[in-house]
Amino acid sequence: MEFSIKQIAHLLGGEVKGDGDTIIHNFAKIEEGKPGCISFLANAKYESFIYGTASSAVLVAKTFEPKEPISTNLILVDDPYLAISTLMAEYQKLTQNSNSGIDAMTSIASNAEIGKNVYIGPFSYVAENAKIGENTQISPQVYIGKKVSVGRNTIIHPGVKIYQDCEIGDNCVIHAGAVIGADGFGFVPDADGIYQDVPQLGNVIIENNVSIGANATIDRATMGSTKVCNGVKIDNMVQIGHNVEVGENTVIAAQTGVAGSTKIGKSCVIGGQVGFAGHLKIADGTQIGAQSGVGKNITEPKGAYSGRPLLPIKDHLKLLVNLRRLNENLKK
Amino acid sequence: MEFSIKQIAHLLGGEVKGDGDTIIHNFAKIEEGKPGCISFLANAKYESFIYGTASSAVLVAKTFEPKEPISTNLILVDDPYLAISTLMAEYQKLTQNSNSGIDAMTSIASNAEIGKNVYIGPFSYVAENAKIGENTQISPQVYIGKKVSVGRNTIIHPGVKIYQDCEIGDNCVIHAGAVIGADGFGFVPDADGIYQDVPQLGNVIIENNVSIGANATIDRATMGSTKVCNGVKIDNMVQIGHNVEVGENTVIAAQTGVAGSTKIGKSCVIGGQVGFAGHLKIADGTQIGAQSGVGKNITEPKGAYSGRPLLPIKDHLKLLVNLRRLNENLKK
Amino acid sequence: MEFSIKQIAHLLGGEVKGDGDTIIHNFAKIEEGKPGCISFLANAKYESFIYGTASSAVLVAKTFEPKEPISTNLILVDDPYLAISTLMAEYQKLTQNSNSGIDAMTSIASNAEIGKNVYIGPFSYVAENAKIGENTQISPQVYIGKKVSVGRNTIIHPGVKIYQDCEIGDNCVIHAGAVIGADGFGFVPDADGIYQDVPQLGNVIIENNVSIGANATIDRATMGSTKVCNGVKIDNMVQIGHNVEVGENTVIAAQTGVAGSTKIGKSCVIGGQVGFAGHLKIADGTQIGAQSGVGKNITEPKGAYSGRPLLPIKDHLKLLVNLRRLNENLKK
Repeated sequence: MEFSIKQIAHLLGGEVKGDGDTIIHNFAKIEEGKPGCISFLANAKYESFIYGTASSAVLVAKTFEPKEPISTNLILVDDPYLAISTLMAEYQKLTQNSNSGIDAMTSIASNAEIGKNVYIGPFSYVAENAKIGENTQISPQVYIGKKVSVGRNTIIHPGVKIYQDCEIGDNCVIHAGAVIGADGFGFVPDADGIYQDVPQLGNVIIENNVSIGANATIDRATMGSTKVCNGVKIDNMVQIGHNVEVGENTVIAAQTGVAGSTKIGKSCVIGGQVGFAGHLKIADGTQIGAQSGVGKNITEPKGAYSGRPLLPIKDHLKLLVNLRRLNENLKK
Repeated sequence: MEFSIKQIAHLLGGEVKGDGDTIIHNFAKIEEGKPGCISFLANAKYESFIYGTASSAVLVAKTFEPKEPISTNLILVDDPYLAISTLMAEYQKLTQNSNSGIDAMTSIASNAEIGKNVYIGPFSYVAENAKIGENTQISPQVYIGKKVSVGRNTIIHPGVKIYQDCEIGDNCVIHAGAVIGADGFGFVPDADGIYQDVPQLGNVIIENNVSIGANATIDRATMGSTKVCNGVKIDNMVQIGHNVEVGENTVIAAQTGVAGSTKIGKSCVIGGQVGFAGHLKIADGTQIGAQSGVGKNITEPKGAYSGRPLLPIKDHLKLLVNLRRLNENLKK
Repeated sequence: MEFSIKQIAHLLGGEVKGDGDTIIHNFAKIEEGKPGCISFLANAKYESFIYGTASSAVLVAKTFEPKEPISTNLILVDDPYLAISTLMAEYQKLTQNSNSGIDAMTSIASNAEIGKNVYIGPFSYVAENAKIGENTQISPQVYIGKKVSVGRNTIIHPGVKIYQDCEIGDNCVIHAGAVIGADGFGFVPDADGIYQDVPQLGNVIIENNVSIGANATIDRATMGSTKVCNGVKIDNMVQIGHNVEVGENTVIAAQTGVAGSTKIGKSCVIGGQVGFAGHLKIADGTQIGAQSGVGKNITEPKGAYSGRPLLPIKDHLKLLVNLRRLNENLKK
């Protein structure tokens, strides 16, 4: 990257405060700033670093009012985090060169349909009747089961395993080690208390623009489909049970688990290490704090909750205070 | 599948209420019913759907008393969930065609013993002195370490890794990405606080009819064996520490962790995201609620517990109520 | 192994109490003792077993005072756990024979630099400009991305995936299924609430003598590096977010998650299933109990904390007692 601050400001629709001719060639966090780098300030927690950063430019909000003199150059934008992200995406486009072609050391069924400009890396396996859409990148050591369909422009990282019949959309990213379509956890005890398998005959449908984190697991439905809708972002080691549905543009942080048949609404924000019981309905726009336990339906949209027991966020914070007090009260 | 309702009722020992000649060709959840499909009603929560389902038949309990008129056909059985599961298993047998043969793109030690009718998929590796029993299916990209033995009729899904010396029984299913026999987490600090490895010289023994979920990890013993006994069902991303034992027919839901040397009894039911401390003994038939923390021995069989602190389930529920009250009381 | 008790005592700098000429050929846990085996007693919980163990020798602390007669032979040492560990390591050295050479069924870029005496197993992939240091063992089915560097004497177990640009030090052990360098979880909502990717342009740096557990995930930094310092031991299924730093000789037990940009100090001991919020600083020598939730900075070194809310360990234990009492008080 070799851009002047002026050029960057122009790209981002921002305003330069300082020397627009300085050349930027890399990114750095504001607290680890270096000459020639651009940083950003989005979280007030990091404000103190802007007064001493060695970076040559910092993206800040138009509303930012410095409390001390600043020696670096500023680019004023509406949303610094969105702006740095846009700039990084441009940089990535310039520097990334995709792999292409189908490696000789692959195992691809003769009746699999492979679109134009697809990459399939070494030691990957594509089973009978699978379909891979154009421009999709299948990294090394990936497993694509029978009748799986993968859309266009999707990136499947090394070692991902997708079981038979599952459907993956366009513009998805699936990170290494994720497992899509393993059997849901269904067993039924017989008269002797010995568990018999409940066959899992459904599939997983992942729509478009979905990200799935490393080593996440999304189980196939018992019958019908487990569904991850458009624009959902799922972090590492998240477990999605059979017949679960995750609504559009919902975000789920790492190590959260969702038990079977629960339906999570659209545009929810779910923290890490949360657990959802099965067969629940969670309203659109719900926010759930990290490590919460969700055991009941949430019917009202856009609520914010946390804890075990799950409480509205204000009550949860009160409870944390009260638990501390409990210790003191009971001392007396 | 092309069966009449009458034929299905006969197979399941059930009784038809309605038109026994209607043909069924697929399965559907009761709330997603379609003509030509069979559904089931096992959970009272879903009762309302039976009055309007579009499915052509529904499996219900003999004891079920409808509150409204039902237009679909019924098959009355003792246990609808067991019945649908049996029916699905029959269907699966008819439709599933196993892979067979040993792919050319495998790496198999010359002294490995491979039973009759074994399938070994592309890019799988079988080390020296390993033994694979007859009819076992080894999917692509599987790793079977030195001296590992795998029994008969076992299914090992893509990308499973089994370290040296481990033993897997008959009729097991191990899902994609599971790791069996990685080193237990054993380190001992030297005088400078630098950790030295404690070699993990034992193995993992998985008996018969065991299911292991996707991306689960079962560590090898320091010395002796980590044991998962007959009929145990382990869900995705469960962590089993070194020298743990899980008793027969115990079920463990997703993302639970069991620390080293803990012995869990037979026929226990463990919820998801539970944590067990190390060196515990848990009595047969114990039930543990999701997200619980188990820090002490449980000596009395068949108890039900939940929470952190772990309490008998009734006390746990009381505590949840009391915590809500605490907020109100301390407001005053 | 064929050593006399005398020889073992000599190796460990211990003192024999009993028959030094008895031959030892294997290890056993004290509660599973067998003739010809050596056991150890480090945890007082297991003391009762020493009076009846069938093992031919037991390593015990010099300070150990038997309460009953002991029929087995003893070796008195300063630290029995360190001693057994040293002995097991010696045994492992004698019995382990490393793999060597580069398998023909690998895919290795022509410009990758491969050191002397490196093993690369079947179906492993090494991308352009990667460097592998001497004596390093790369098991089958491993993925080494572009420009990755791996140091000397490092063991990478089957199926590990290391994304581009990451750096792994000397003498590390990375267990099966671990994913190093997947994208950090960074998304920024646009005006329509649709999430755009924040490119993750940084890397992961793992220093020397680090152990990473099976199916653990360590995300690459947004910019700069996610750092795991010398001597850190990370257990199975631990999640390390982008731009996190884990200080030297810190130990993290299974299924713990650390959110983005948190800095954990040196010589900390973190239990299993703990969650850390993002952007925290945790002082050196901090101890955190299993299943805790850490939401604030910890500034004082060497503190011990537990629970949700996180409290000093003594207060946490008090709170557990008080919660039990709460149930009783509110009954009245």
